[in-house]
Amino acid sequence: MGGMKAPEDLLRRVRQGNRFLLTSHVNPDGDAIGSALGLARLLRRMGKGAVVWNRDETPTIYRPLPGSERIHVGAEPPAGFPDVFDAIIVLECPSPDRTGIEQYLGERPVINIDHHLGNQHYGTINWVDTAAPAVGEMVYRLAQGLKVALEPETASCLYLTLVTDTGGFRFSNATPVAFEAAASLVRDGAHPEQVAQWLYESQPLPVLRLAGEMLQTLQVHEGGRIASALLTQEMFARVGAAPGDSEGLIDYPRSVAGVEAVTLIREREDGTHKVSLRSRGEVDVEKIARQHGGGGHRNAAGFVLEGDREEVRRRVVELLAEALNAPGEADQAGQESTGR
Amino acid sequence: MGGMKAPEDLLRRVRQGNRFLLTSHVNPDGDAIGSALGLARLLRRMGKGAVVWNRDETPTIYRPLPGSERIHVGAEPPAGFPDVFDAIIVLECPSPDRTGIEQYLGERPVINIDHHLGNQHYGTINWVDTAAPAVGEMVYRLAQGLKVALEPETASCLYLTLVTDTGGFRFSNATPVAFEAAASLVRDGAHPEQVAQWLYESQPLPVLRLAGEMLQTLQVHEGGRIASALLTQEMFARVGAAPGDSEGLIDYPRSVAGVEAVTLIREREDGTHKVSLRSRGEVDVEKIARQHGGGGHRNAAGFVLEGDREEVRRRVVELLAEALNAPGEADQAGQESTGR
Repeated sequence: MGGMKAPEDLLRRVRQGNRFLLTSHVNPDGDAIGSALGLARLLRRMGKGAVVWNRDETPTIYRPLPGSERIHVGAEPPAGFPDVFDAIIVLECPSPDRTGIEQYLGERPVINIDHHLGNQHYGTINWVDTAAPAVGEMVYRLAQGLKVALEPETASCLYLTLVTDTGGFRFSNATPVAFEAAASLVRDGAHPEQVAQWLYESQPLPVLRLAGEMLQTLQVHEGGRIASALLTQEMFARVGAAPGDSEGLIDYPRSVAGVEAVTLIREREDGTHKVSLRSRGEVDVEKIARQHGGGGHRNAAGFVLEGDREEVRRRVVELLAEALNAPGEADQAGQESTGR
Repeated sequence: MGGMKAPEDLLRRVRQGNRFLLTSHVNPDGDAIGSALGLARLLRRMGKGAVVWNRDETPTIYRPLPGSERIHVGAEPPAGFPDVFDAIIVLECPSPDRTGIEQYLGERPVINIDHHLGNQHYGTINWVDTAAPAVGEMVYRLAQGLKVALEPETASCLYLTLVTDTGGFRFSNATPVAFEAAASLVRDGAHPEQVAQWLYESQPLPVLRLAGEMLQTLQVHEGGRIASALLTQEMFARVGAAPGDSEGLIDYPRSVAGVEAVTLIREREDGTHKVSLRSRGEVDVEKIARQHGGGGHRNAAGFVLEGDREEVRRRVVELLAEALNAPGEADQAGQESTGR
């Protein structure tokens, strides 16, 4: 059930190597960035060289992490590759193609450290623990195995991976192992308040003001099972918000008690409406989106509609109500994987 | 540094008693409700009687907690008081008057369990641990001292106190002790995902609408270091919100990037204003609150002010600006305990 020691062959390989290249997956998230930066610090603390290389940019919210400015970003390998590196450590990546730099992986032995169900065991060494709440937690166990004390900055990098991958200790992977690792990392100097500030308390003022505008339009339908909200160009202008500022605002209507499906309808500059859909559990909003030329996943999808704003709202609520009441929907969905 | 064992005289008194009355402070929060319900379950598990009596209503978001429907609410004591009770256990309450039922406390021995700095030690027995992340964490230690295994529901009640008092493990009291207690409570059957759903994804519609109203009044001051927002009786009426529905709304202005101190000013039915304060780091808002007849912790406090709404806002922002710019504030604060 997780919390097991890092394997001996991995410990040996890390002790023997002198320089490591660390990478993760495209569109890196908190666990990808935090586990790589934490491991890089750990290796340097052991007197080894470590370079983090990600194909994609580090998202803004992870840039305060110590060392993020040193990440090598892009499709081209860092200087000296492959000769100066003893091995490539791939973190939080279920398959080679997801690294975005697959063609370079053959140049050096690969150490695959991951917690994804369905990891393809593509490494020379593979340490896959699907019970680990985050790969950063596995790096913490690696540090224990290597008997290297963590510096506070390293502990913060690894602590952040726990926070992002457990949704702030709100998902089902907020296990005893996750909380024990958090306790230990905080003892080593991780700073929960600071990490939370990086992740959650750095909202631009217009984003909150825009949320306020949107919440004025919040309605529920179908006896509370559907929630809808609107965003207009006028609202964006009134609060001085940029187009990207509505990202994530659909989480507000999503948090209404008892709601199973949600739509946020955003008026675009050309007067058409971007319809965002979210659902809980079995309601398949991707299907609705696809039928209207859009796309997404079962629980998060979107498409574009033309027409009068309230007319669009009525139409979308109707579509969601149909999906909600469709017979057999649950049976079909039950056959899909529930993996994260 | 917290995590110390429950004192022997308390353990003895609890073992000896047969029926306990449990209470907390007016306007009960998650720690007040969760620690009382958790302790009541613990006592019943030991074969003892336990009644929770709070002067004020249980806020909606805490009503899913097991046993919340059995809380005796109001200014009148529960049936049989005082004769049937051996002692009154007051949880999370720094002074007798804050219970709202002060006149009844003299009727029975009082056991005072709290983590507030400045607790007045008003009990026959006083267990005050300012390093405890939540009083619920102290109840957890009490259970350990009493050697009573926790049921999953009890563990969830106590786990919730950790979540609410540490702001979802985001405040400075998200200490190793807090995470270790969380790990242990989850092992005992607390359900982080469910608690998160109660707290964060079960918002009554009026709460979100009220948030929308409040966000319309959001302002920043002092170059963005202070944020303020208002709630009026008119807003409550317009969205159909109950008084308890504003609980937690101060977290919205608190999440603005760069903000160090926050106030939410809520008009009460009698026309006076409840001033809630939050701060980051060294800014001591408890001091401000205390000087105005209120109380709280260094980073979370409140008091009541009379006067015109915008006048109150101006005055409070002024007080926060003074605290923010006070020389030596950090030095003074450094000498205090870091308990909440």
